[in-house]
Amino acid sequence: MTIITIVGAGVMGSALTFPAVDNQNEVRLVGTHLDEAIIESLRKDHFHPRLRRPLNEAVKIYSHTEIAEAIKDADVVGLGINSQGVHWAAEAIGPHLREGQIIVMVTKGMESVDSSLKILPDVLHDNLPAAICDKVHYAAIGGPSIAGELAARRETAVVFVSRNADILPKLRSYFSTPYYHIWTSTDLIGVEVCVALKNPYALAVGLAAGVLEKQGEDVASAKMHNYAAAVFAQGLAETAIMVQKLGGGLETVFSLPGAGDLYVTTQGGRNSRMGRLLGMGMSYSDAVEEMPGETIEGVDAVIAMMPAIDAMIAAGQLDANALPLLRELHRIVTRNASIAFDFNSFFSKLPFNPPENIHHT
Amino acid sequence: MTIITIVGAGVMGSALTFPAVDNQNEVRLVGTHLDEAIIESLRKDHFHPRLRRPLNEAVKIYSHTEIAEAIKDADVVGLGINSQGVHWAAEAIGPHLREGQIIVMVTKGMESVDSSLKILPDVLHDNLPAAICDKVHYAAIGGPSIAGELAARRETAVVFVSRNADILPKLRSYFSTPYYHIWTSTDLIGVEVCVALKNPYALAVGLAAGVLEKQGEDVASAKMHNYAAAVFAQGLAETAIMVQKLGGGLETVFSLPGAGDLYVTTQGGRNSRMGRLLGMGMSYSDAVEEMPGETIEGVDAVIAMMPAIDAMIAAGQLDANALPLLRELHRIVTRNASIAFDFNSFFSKLPFNPPENIHHT
Repeated sequence: MTIITIVGAGVMGSALTFPAVDNQNEVRLVGTHLDEAIIESLRKDHFHPRLRRPLNEAVKIYSHTEIAEAIKDADVVGLGINSQGVHWAAEAIGPHLREGQIIVMVTKGMESVDSSLKILPDVLHDNLPAAICDKVHYAAIGGPSIAGELAARRETAVVFVSRNADILPKLRSYFSTPYYHIWTSTDLIGVEVCVALKNPYALAVGLAAGVLEKQGEDVASAKMHNYAAAVFAQGLAETAIMVQKLGGGLETVFSLPGAGDLYVTTQGGRNSRMGRLLGMGMSYSDAVEEMPGETIEGVDAVIAMMPAIDAMIAAGQLDANALPLLRELHRIVTRNASIAFDFNSFFSKLPFNPPENIHHT
Repeated sequence: MTIITIVGAGVMGSALTFPAVDNQNEVRLVGTHLDEAIIESLRKDHFHPRLRRPLNEAVKIYSHTEIAEAIKDADVVGLGINSQGVHWAAEAIGPHLREGQIIVMVTKGMESVDSSLKILPDVLHDNLPAAICDKVHYAAIGGPSIAGELAARRETAVVFVSRNADILPKLRSYFSTPYYHIWTSTDLIGVEVCVALKNPYALAVGLAAGVLEKQGEDVASAKMHNYAAAVFAQGLAETAIMVQKLGGGLETVFSLPGAGDLYVTTQGGRNSRMGRLLGMGMSYSDAVEEMPGETIEGVDAVIAMMPAIDAMIAAGQLDANALPLLRELHRIVTRNASIAFDFNSFFSKLPFNPPENIHHT
């Protein structure tokens, strides 16, 4: 029997137990030090308080103090932690990994490391013990996958990705179910860049809803969808620029990991809620107080990526005007600036002639 | 003073009068034979019953019997008719066109003509009198532009496109305002393929809402966004395949005309409403009765395009499995079939390995 150990008992890690159990694997779920309340609830009656449904009784529950035992004979180690937890995870799992294990990351993000952008599987690799870091396999999951829907066994289509094509058929076979549709790809860079950028760009699309509320009712009930769609398009275009720049494939952008995941992320969630608050004209520091204790991955991602992007621009590797939307988001969340999108600055790297720059409010 | 005559007093043609008037042009709006009630209302008090707001008093109103006078000295003739009205428009405007005029189409769609797919500007060209068809310029508008929002002067970002790059700066200058942001492009094929396909694919995304309603409440209120996003991604991927096949550029797909316009079209409107009814399990013929008298452009587009697509497949120009989503839509609307998406058939033309085909309900 294949053993799948998932580290991180948040919504996404826990949701993955559904296809894993349905697929006849032995499934273990390990809470981090932040998941104690969840683990306690799961031990009591299998109920997951954030997914708001019980997990399958076959899922074996472990606390972070039992991580060694949970990992040592696993075939697959899934990482369902947030983007800031990668360094913790490297320390926590590093001593217990064995040669040949497959690590699957559902965590999204990129980091600036020594002036260059690193995808999280590479950050993990670089933080694992030297004795093991080249002896395990790295894979990741991209594509539109709201955890609560996967846990409800609703149709979900994703891409499993690894630089090592040999492990992918096996890995897919462990998770594939009639409701969990899995394509495989070796475009690790493309997938990771797409999934890292979808949170900030979904936050940006969410601004439109706040701008609409601030503006008040229109005589003909006009909404702000044109605004949101222009931002959506610019977000996807900036994603395409970065994917190409870092060596990924465009087909990853216009399919599940890019367009699909950006679309699903605009349909709700914390990034959208933060976007709405900012769109209403609230400063970032005030907006954060409205969402106490919540991780806004779109904000973390912009802050983590911008130093490396600035370094790429300084080194002449990236045009300073290539990412005006990401730049504006950074200004909003680091300087408490109110939004002032210059729409005319969008799409400047595409073979379109840009608008004349009429200044407007 | 530049004279802009817009033929078609529906919502999109009429919305274009806002940037055209704000930009100091003489603006004329000509109703078709279907627009008599609108023209009557506009003549009475400038109120547009479908946009639910008054047009600018400077807009000169014409009925279809006055089309000759409205067109003869115009610099630009805008066509704001629906996709089935192109043949009517060719007959109606053909005798009155003059050399050098620019025709701008906001009409979306493609047609099967002699076993090949034709974009509407080319259909128009081929149906205009031989004496004039090569003496006018053809342009079109693509990108996310809900008419009611443009009429409310809300931020709207679009692409003006023509094979003739020389006319584009002038044309843009006639419409460009602080709220109407216009890029220009010569990728006429790319833009027209994107805007023709966005209606059927938005209808397909809308199915998810109906499937959700049919399925009933989930214990944890799970929605159907993963399903919608997978369909969104497949729609964009099929768009990319067709754009490349017909000679357009991928950058048109991952920016305003492709991703942006598909996004905005999923946010409401008739195609989404039809999608929801079909997703609830209603047959197409019953769903049509729920929306009496309404043109569902997504349906018309699929029906108009499929003969040429079948001919391309028969001639070996297109893989039979390249467009499974469009094929399924065609089956639904022509055979009253209930939806049975085979998600595993998606993305088969991308460099991903497809899922094993597990049959499921």
